[in-house]
Amino acid sequence: MHELETIIHAADEAINREDLDAVLAFYTDDATLVVRPGLNASGKDQIRKAFTAIAEHFNHTLHVTQEHLVVIEGGDTALVLGKAEIRAKDPAGAQVLIEREATYVFIKDAGGNWRCAVDNSYGTSLLRI
Amino acid sequence: MHELETIIHAADEAINREDLDAVLAFYTDDATLVVRPGLNASGKDQIRKAFTAIAEHFNHTLHVTQEHLVVIEGGDTALVLGKAEIRAKDPAGAQVLIEREATYVFIKDAGGNWRCAVDNSYGTSLLRI
Repeated sequence: MHELETIIHAADEAINREDLDAVLAFYTDDATLVVRPGLNASGKDQIRKAFTAIAEHFNHTLHVTQEHLVVIEGGDTALVLGKAEIRAKDPAGAQVLIEREATYVFIKDAGGNWRCAVDNSYGTSLLRI
Repeated sequence: MHELETIIHAADEAINREDLDAVLAFYTDDATLVVRPGLNASGKDQIRKAFTAIAEHFNHTLHVTQEHLVVIEGGDTALVLGKAEIRAKDPAGAQVLIEREATYVFIKDAGGNWRCAVDNSYGTSLLRI
């Protein structure tokens, strides 16, 4: 398994247990998270607020996993493609499953650690909006 | 227009006139180009050979444009999504049009210039192979 697969699975687990400090440690300081089409969060303060709002929106039932990951490295930069499965209960209590073809960009910092610089779970679907 | 849109349009024009020196200048030294699913070219030597082979495959009729681009910056890193249109004549002389939802990763070098680190015109379709 590629190192980045292990990292992304660990990040998903941190999201699922709502450990925001652990989640934020996976991002660069000036990372951008696509919260929804047209709304980006940049920097750790905005990303923390976004994850807090997302957890509340799903009434703390959010569970994210990646079915399949593809890693394409170019030096200290990597494009990661993921088949993301997002399970949650909607406000009425019904189970929902959202599948997305996600795109993530990671960069290796001076200490050799991969950090996420762009987190776009909407992938190329943003081209169709 | 975002600076990266101008850069990508210029790169497409360089591809279309088969100016490989100009094409290669858009890439980082250790960039990766997805030539086709399962075949990556890494580094400028391999990328030059790949573009030479692609041009020959299409009998020098390749014409690439981007219909629509979305840029998501995270610090000195950017994910670019593009609706790529690839026009060419097949070996029998028939005009073909290939549309792809492409994904590109750019990083800003020490001189402030954006360079492509990952060129994956197949986008998230690699998850479906």
